[in-house]
Amino acid sequence: MIRILVTGGTFDKKYDELTGRLFFRETHVPEMLRLGRSRLDVTIETAMMIDSLDLDDEGRQAIVAKCAGAPERAILVTHGTDTMVETARALAAASLDGKTIVLTGAMVPYAFGSSDGLFNLGSALSFVQVLPPGVYIAMNGRHFRWDAVQKNRATGAFEATA
Amino acid sequence: MIRILVTGGTFDKKYDELTGRLFFRETHVPEMLRLGRSRLDVTIETAMMIDSLDLDDEGRQAIVAKCAGAPERAILVTHGTDTMVETARALAAASLDGKTIVLTGAMVPYAFGSSDGLFNLGSALSFVQVLPPGVYIAMNGRHFRWDAVQKNRATGAFEATA
Amino acid sequence: MIRILVTGGTFDKKYDELTGRLFFRETHVPEMLRLGRSRLDVTIETAMMIDSLDLDDEGRQAIVAKCAGAPERAILVTHGTDTMVETARALAAASLDGKTIVLTGAMVPYAFGSSDGLFNLGSALSFVQVLPPGVYIAMNGRHFRWDAVQKNRATGAFEATA
Amino acid sequence: MIRILVTGGTFDKKYDELTGRLFFRETHVPEMLRLGRSRLDVTIETAMMIDSLDLDDEGRQAIVAKCAGAPERAILVTHGTDTMVETARALAAASLDGKTIVLTGAMVPYAFGSSDGLFNLGSALSFVQVLPPGVYIAMNGRHFRWDAVQKNRATGAFEATA
Repeated sequence: MIRILVTGGTFDKKYDELTGRLFFRETHVPEMLRLGRSRLDVTIETAMMIDSLDLDDEGRQAIVAKCAGAPERAILVTHGTDTMVETARALAAASLDGKTIVLTGAMVPYAFGSSDGLFNLGSALSFVQVLPPGVYIAMNGRHFRWDAVQKNRATGAFEATA
Repeated sequence: MIRILVTGGTFDKKYDELTGRLFFRETHVPEMLRLGRSRLDVTIETAMMIDSLDLDDEGRQAIVAKCAGAPERAILVTHGTDTMVETARALAAASLDGKTIVLTGAMVPYAFGSSDGLFNLGSALSFVQVLPPGVYIAMNGRHFRWDAVQKNRATGAFEATA
Repeated sequence: MIRILVTGGTFDKKYDELTGRLFFRETHVPEMLRLGRSRLDVTIETAMMIDSLDLDDEGRQAIVAKCAGAPERAILVTHGTDTMVETARALAAASLDGKTIVLTGAMVPYAFGSSDGLFNLGSALSFVQVLPPGVYIAMNGRHFRWDAVQKNRATGAFEATA
Repeated sequence: MIRILVTGGTFDKKYDELTGRLFFRETHVPEMLRLGRSRLDVTIETAMMIDSLDLDDEGRQAIVAKCAGAPERAILVTHGTDTMVETARALAAASLDGKTIVLTGAMVPYAFGSSDGLFNLGSALSFVQVLPPGVYIAMNGRHFRWDAVQKNRATGAFEATA
């Protein structure tokens, strides 16, 4: 059994056709799981729906608390890419022994057609089932330990730190 | 480093607008990897482009030979779902020690918009990086050992055998 | 007020993921009108859901009868492209004075993402509002009188006869 | 022969995955015409690529000058919806006798999948071929004279003025 903790991020942004702005409403994760014909036993919980640039320490601790309190040993966190590494660090600091936590997100909103979201969701759900306990980021088809990854702002890709 | 061995299947079918029939041309895997912003080091090889119902023993042995001859230890095989289990069995019978081979496919062609293909590709590429040597099928967000899986023809889903 | 008479055709074909075949269920026209943010006053009626190669004289006369009996003066008929010209001819032979009837279709199913269907629907709905009474085909952004058009089987495009 | 004058607007906005902002690059009109299997004889000219809220009198006069100088009698102008009515008024004031000018746009960027753009393009290209000389707006499947239309900011739809 897997818990999917939704926090927002580009993944779930929508286009408001009246204002021309991007905004959040409900998560697309259930629709994405249907599209992927997923047969995994998952529980989806929306912790918040925000841009990860707007995520402060309090919000980050709320994510940690949700993961600590979840009965599942496998947890997938959908998250904006800009501060995904910071949240991974906060989760690692909490020493949630025995849990495998994988964070993922998207560079383009799922609703926009050209999104990496469905690929990333398939990837992260797979990693979370087989990686040993710990905190990881799954992006670009790869997985990284929380303390060995950074987002390259020039390319948008996640890469290993030296 | 991962080898992606393309064999066709629903995954890669296209719609011929002059005849109204489904057909194969080139694989969509490179385009799908771009969409997924994959940063994996992969080599893509097209072994054949056929419907897996048309795959005979000779074709199946050609796939086995390609996997045996590949220098990579991680191999992803894209394959039609109808006889995916048979090909997995043939690969297992060949005892390719030290190799992790994952087969995946799609229920709907990637080109048709409502496809599970991108999800499955992200999933299979992740499993192939972390599973121990052996032959597996990755579908519906799950992975199965070659000898513990069947396709449920009524639902289209892969499931564990008793 | 416009009547949209649905008869099937490539326009409305779907992909059956269990059998790998194309089939019909309900028309996509309401969904397409929503996507086009249409504010037209339309009544949608499904006369039949068939491949136009399977349409015989009886079926063709049923379409003529539906058009003759419709209270609207503007009628859009969605139709397979293979025998669209034959149905246009049958409609013209019925001398439905005062009615503007436009037939349209698609080369690729609407559900497949790369379809011309939405473009054709926008085009045909526009032509039907402003063309004088008569029977027309609207395809490829153009409109043709029923007796001055043919489908070019090699290119898939509709073109004027000499 | 039809001239398509591109000015930007939501129609042509793209998503910048590095900054999360919407921006313009090249117009999608050629790709949209391919998707619609258009066989119309068109010349595409990009006058500018801007949000119509940023269009000032000078820009508006540049659009008028382009339309006045175009050799074609049928001109389609792609335009942001927010000030489309103002540009239509400026075009009408220029008294471009003998020309049929149709403005259209989109509520959602073409690149975002759920766009009305392809429907509107098919509609506007059809109206421009058959309406008498004058200046019109084509949106929501309908056409309006320049002096009898307003955008309803609450619904996003264009509607007739009283």
